[in-house]
Amino acid sequence: MITRFTERDWETDETDGSIRFALVGLGWWTMDVVVPAIEQSDYCETTVLVSSSTEKAERLADENNVESGITYDEFHDGAAVEKYDAVYIGTPNAYHLDYVETAADLEKAVLCEKPLEATVERAEQLVEAADEADIPLMTAYRMHTEPAVRRAKELIEDGFIGEPTHVYGNNTQPILEMIPDPDQWRLDSDVTGYGTSVMDLGIYPINTARFLLERDPIAAEARMSSPDEAFDDVPDQYATVTLTLEGDLPLVCTTSQHAQQDTQLKIIGTEGTIELQPAFHGEATLHLARGSTRATIEDAEYTAVEEMREEFDYFADRVLNDNAILPDGHHGLADLRTIEAIHEAADRDERVDLSE
Amino acid sequence: MITRFTERDWETDETDGSIRFALVGLGWWTMDVVVPAIEQSDYCETTVLVSSSTEKAERLADENNVESGITYDEFHDGAAVEKYDAVYIGTPNAYHLDYVETAADLEKAVLCEKPLEATVERAEQLVEAADEADIPLMTAYRMHTEPAVRRAKELIEDGFIGEPTHVYGNNTQPILEMIPDPDQWRLDSDVTGYGTSVMDLGIYPINTARFLLERDPIAAEARMSSPDEAFDDVPDQYATVTLTLEGDLPLVCTTSQHAQQDTQLKIIGTEGTIELQPAFHGEATLHLARGSTRATIEDAEYTAVEEMREEFDYFADRVLNDNAILPDGHHGLADLRTIEAIHEAADRDERVDLSE
Repeated sequence: MITRFTERDWETDETDGSIRFALVGLGWWTMDVVVPAIEQSDYCETTVLVSSSTEKAERLADENNVESGITYDEFHDGAAVEKYDAVYIGTPNAYHLDYVETAADLEKAVLCEKPLEATVERAEQLVEAADEADIPLMTAYRMHTEPAVRRAKELIEDGFIGEPTHVYGNNTQPILEMIPDPDQWRLDSDVTGYGTSVMDLGIYPINTARFLLERDPIAAEARMSSPDEAFDDVPDQYATVTLTLEGDLPLVCTTSQHAQQDTQLKIIGTEGTIELQPAFHGEATLHLARGSTRATIEDAEYTAVEEMREEFDYFADRVLNDNAILPDGHHGLADLRTIEAIHEAADRDERVDLSE
Repeated sequence: MITRFTERDWETDETDGSIRFALVGLGWWTMDVVVPAIEQSDYCETTVLVSSSTEKAERLADENNVESGITYDEFHDGAAVEKYDAVYIGTPNAYHLDYVETAADLEKAVLCEKPLEATVERAEQLVEAADEADIPLMTAYRMHTEPAVRRAKELIEDGFIGEPTHVYGNNTQPILEMIPDPDQWRLDSDVTGYGTSVMDLGIYPINTARFLLERDPIAAEARMSSPDEAFDDVPDQYATVTLTLEGDLPLVCTTSQHAQQDTQLKIIGTEGTIELQPAFHGEATLHLARGSTRATIEDAEYTAVEEMREEFDYFADRVLNDNAILPDGHHGLADLRTIEAIHEAADRDERVDLSE
């Protein structure tokens, strides 16, 4: 376990070639995390940067030794189309659809940030656009290729925890301290979608638990509140969610954009526990317990950059070898349906069925 | 904080005398934890052991250098009454009332294990008996004098976490591995009361959060299931509870008597987090975070014996100095009302109001 902790069990032998990326949306995540991640990667390179103005795109391209910097409009018009193979979409949620539609027209593979879009309807259009053009589409759930998560999944499959009995996840951060602007897009329902905490943070424990346990939610209950003025436009400054996963397994999730940063995912079973704490913000430490034996494992090198490197190389590996992508568009769409149900449950103050 | 981690901030200066105890119910907790705890204590001694048979009581008294061993019947008849000042009740839940009534008749102070009784009605009678006889009555919540919990309470009062936003607690253990007997009293509703997991385990995070935050529950929601035959007589082999504490603060609690041992209490706030993990089974490690600073503090000596030593000395300190006891009978009764509401909420599948 320790000797192969960071092993790329997903990697195809003798992969040839590389994927050239156009990065759309040049916020801090793209520039400070994605660009260095691609520099570290085995199968990816950044060839085009896409932003709001020619000045910004060209300046950032120049500073980062990237071939081209173009505007959003130029991207939609097919500029530099011969210079990239795939598009990474790191814009605010409600703008994902437009870029995926263009990428589909241009027949480019797409790696799209989570949540897939602002609403279920727009995410459905997004997935349909990719399906119709037959382009590869991945939802950017980097926890799927985080080593601690992959080792946790193997342990669960090997029966380490026995039957799971409870799942708990927390994801909280102080967004107004991190980005001191009450008008930021994550607090604007037109751009973020259903809300801010579950869409941006709660989605981590919800998707990671679903990936680890291979169980989908069948019902949602939730309570939300937004007492502070900066959160007037979103219902979930604070949220507490209880999902019922297949097999009647409860997944409780607490989340807030207005609290101390803290991330945790705990899976309790009849025979053992598996816990990630911290779990989601570029650090993942794996805590194992079975009977009276405990172990803690982490890779000291890993940060968000290494997590994104693994995600990009996984995406490139799938595209170059024409293999199926696990967190594809349909996978990301399912989480958006769950999040819509969570908001509906909180709004109506009742359990919402997700079993169809 | 580190230099005074185990400080007895509750201790009265220059306390004279000591309290002689009759211990009622000689199971493993009493013999392996309480007897050595009293031996380590400053203000307590064990003078009488009370059990089902003369043979068992006298043998255990002899083995542990305790003055007298008497039967339950002899205790009720006032045997050895001049040899003890207070009674510790460590019997199964549904037998607490009888012993408290006798202690009240004999005008002895009482330290009674949690939960206070098997039902709200019996706990009310128990508290009334103590009140009418004007004897000191303490519910044996040892977390109230656990150093990590007391330091956590001071930090919360000092504003370390800001405003609390979410509370999560877990308490799970594999009771059938610890006591391999499907007929044990904790699985018998006549003796345990409303159920097994919330009554015996969930009560820890529920009471400790209430103590730390000084907020009472105003509503309860819960889901429970008992799929295995050994749990046929109790509804909560597995339970997930959401309480609303005063100030609309959610407290989520997961608990099971049929899972890997794991205990945790996490309090998230706008400015920091305070977490105990492990929390409840004789180990308490305090994890603090505020901004990007983290600290972990524990006392390497502490086990359940040291926790019980502190509890007994606290009780003796209060009784000898005629001071008010914090976790008194009314305090313990309130938790039983909460647990009754939790079971009612699970049974009716709806939110139960606790605000009166």
